[in-house]
Amino acid sequence: MHLEAYSKSDLLAWSRELEEHYRGFQASGLDLDLTRGKPSIAQLQLSAALDGILDGDYCLADGSDARGYGGLDGIPEARVLAAQWLGLTEAQVLVAGNSSLTLMYLFMLSAHVLGLQGAESPWCRQSGGARFLCPVPGYDRHFAICEELGIEMLPVPMNADGPDMDVVESLVTADPSIKGIWCVPKFSNPTGVVYSDQVVRRLAELPGRAGDGFFIFWDNAYRVHEFDTTPVPLLNIMDECRRRGSQGRVVIFGSTSKVTFAGAGLAFMGASVDTLNAFRRHLSVLTIGPDKVNQLRHLRFLPDMAAVRDLMVRHAAILRPKFQCVQQRLREGLGNHGMGTWTDPAGGYFVSFDALPGLAARIIERAAAAGVKLTPAGAAFPYGRDPEDRNIRLAPSYPSVDDVDRAMQVFVTCVQLCSVEKRLGELGADG
Amino acid sequence: MHLEAYSKSDLLAWSRELEEHYRGFQASGLDLDLTRGKPSIAQLQLSAALDGILDGDYCLADGSDARGYGGLDGIPEARVLAAQWLGLTEAQVLVAGNSSLTLMYLFMLSAHVLGLQGAESPWCRQSGGARFLCPVPGYDRHFAICEELGIEMLPVPMNADGPDMDVVESLVTADPSIKGIWCVPKFSNPTGVVYSDQVVRRLAELPGRAGDGFFIFWDNAYRVHEFDTTPVPLLNIMDECRRRGSQGRVVIFGSTSKVTFAGAGLAFMGASVDTLNAFRRHLSVLTIGPDKVNQLRHLRFLPDMAAVRDLMVRHAAILRPKFQCVQQRLREGLGNHGMGTWTDPAGGYFVSFDALPGLAARIIERAAAAGVKLTPAGAAFPYGRDPEDRNIRLAPSYPSVDDVDRAMQVFVTCVQLCSVEKRLGELGADG
Repeated sequence: MHLEAYSKSDLLAWSRELEEHYRGFQASGLDLDLTRGKPSIAQLQLSAALDGILDGDYCLADGSDARGYGGLDGIPEARVLAAQWLGLTEAQVLVAGNSSLTLMYLFMLSAHVLGLQGAESPWCRQSGGARFLCPVPGYDRHFAICEELGIEMLPVPMNADGPDMDVVESLVTADPSIKGIWCVPKFSNPTGVVYSDQVVRRLAELPGRAGDGFFIFWDNAYRVHEFDTTPVPLLNIMDECRRRGSQGRVVIFGSTSKVTFAGAGLAFMGASVDTLNAFRRHLSVLTIGPDKVNQLRHLRFLPDMAAVRDLMVRHAAILRPKFQCVQQRLREGLGNHGMGTWTDPAGGYFVSFDALPGLAARIIERAAAAGVKLTPAGAAFPYGRDPEDRNIRLAPSYPSVDDVDRAMQVFVTCVQLCSVEKRLGELGADG
Repeated sequence: MHLEAYSKSDLLAWSRELEEHYRGFQASGLDLDLTRGKPSIAQLQLSAALDGILDGDYCLADGSDARGYGGLDGIPEARVLAAQWLGLTEAQVLVAGNSSLTLMYLFMLSAHVLGLQGAESPWCRQSGGARFLCPVPGYDRHFAICEELGIEMLPVPMNADGPDMDVVESLVTADPSIKGIWCVPKFSNPTGVVYSDQVVRRLAELPGRAGDGFFIFWDNAYRVHEFDTTPVPLLNIMDECRRRGSQGRVVIFGSTSKVTFAGAGLAFMGASVDTLNAFRRHLSVLTIGPDKVNQLRHLRFLPDMAAVRDLMVRHAAILRPKFQCVQQRLREGLGNHGMGTWTDPAGGYFVSFDALPGLAARIIERAAAAGVKLTPAGAAFPYGRDPEDRNIRLAPSYPSVDDVDRAMQVFVTCVQLCSVEKRLGELGADG
């Protein structure tokens, strides 16, 4: 039954019942955490063979020794894999250390502060400052990079098939100081949205409408992260850009962080050869090259995309029950009450929950007081500001299914409690 | 006999002999390389046990799993080692990925562009720009960071016991836009100089004389790189700074790049707790944390400084004959001719050679034409400009002793050739 259909007295009774239920959770001394998209130990264990896999053979495909200095682009065999991973040619990719976030930061630093096309090209040199489009809810660490570098963020609504392109196009057309857009095109963090072909095509057209130096930041972090064996398709952004002459205006990222070891994987980056060359000039100042030994380990473990897919099927088997549990608890606890909406993604690491307006911070606070940590309210928005205070990111990958289940019971109870409380407030003293 | 004591006809005869000798080298099709300070394969092999050392045990001292995300400061056990390595407390250090150069870059970026002490603190915000002192000859990659970030470099002469502190002090006192100094205090690149106690103490006093935001960049890259088992002492810069109240103004770097695997080691950074905290705020934007698995591998392999020292004794046994060969060839070929001076370091990776003025580029060119690659002329100077065109960096670590010997024969011949040529030019047509 919908929340608004309850009488005040029924709501009061329900509220008392929920409070009692909630106190029960508090008394049970839970310590659960749904804050971050971390692979579980069982998932990490799937790549246990990585350490020791080299067995004393450090020889690369080009005959050099992986243990030495150098090789800014990564080892040749890793570039072959990265090219397949990102849908690019080998000349269009480089393979770095354990963090694609670092590559994104360094690319944005290069574009904003250092310049990719000569001394006058940095965004920060251009009058009026630099702005960046941020589909919301989105990834907090993307937004932190913009904030750190002093790039003003403009939120853009996310639809079920990607960013609202009408809004995106009108903003970009009207304001040449908008220098790019953050995209997580597949199983987007936190909504799980996959960009439709139509959205990808309209994105590829954006550089033609935008001011100088515009870049699409294409963080394809969940490229191979289906919950199911059926691949979820995504249009190749570079192909679409090439058709429109905007191939130099997209920069593509990926990593094995949620494939092998979360903190000890490989990061991939791709762009047109010219864009990559411009970036390489900056990258070469701060590093002699990535950890090639770890790259070689990865390539021995995952020689091609078929091996990657085999591994991801095993990840999916671990993740699927956790996401199913989240959906079941949400459906059963909130399904017909009008207390919020949520996404049901086919892959990735998150579920995005929208509570009734004004309740997200309160729900998170109550969950924490009952021993369930959630991502802070507003985290998925630029500057941490969720204008309606409704979005909550749920990240069920790390705990066991039982713990996810316990945490979701607490979460659902908190949503119910806060929603009933809010409704009672609306009904007022004489409702 | 000294070059200037030769008659013109003797010089002409010598020159013909040398040219013939040189053509012999050219005919022999050499392909030798003394350009970079790279550990040899035999040295890399000393750490072969690293891969596979974990044997499935990824558990850290704090009970967490090394394979997961997080831990910006590095794993606790690595911080213990880093503290001993850098002569600091555990709270004063962090351990990162495979490159201390990256840490230096990021610290300089933080100080110059982002700000370590609030919005007005970036060096680039201060009127008159930022300048940096560069003892010369020095490390080209240090200078590249300044150039990349638009920090003007002021060369300072190196004496046998460190930078010329009279010059350093008078520059720093006169110009508050000088924001720091690059130091490689032990077995300095390329001279092999070890800073004397007196120089370290005077450096620790510099922040008191300097403008706001001054930092000593203390790149102790060759901390454990003696050729001999006798440790070469170096005063602890942090202790000296603390005595003078300047403990917040030094930032210390080190790495295992020339201890374990050149491209796959650990980087260390140390500073006062306040300075480290200020830096951490920036670092946390671009990375979730370093490769902790590789840190754990290193700690299992090198649990303490005693293990490090044992390993370095084995490195020294491989390096010593190569450096002895360089010294012998220089002494025998150039010892009493007045054709140049060179350093004879007790550790590190380089020998610095000063030719007669105006000859460095020419010697390097002739050596290259005979199949011996040397570091480009001027590389050890800011903007690649050696004002007297005399400095040549010799890096004999990578080739075999036999190849070092062959390369040094070519080098000595090229120095002789160019010096005789120069002398003949001075004597003129009627000399």
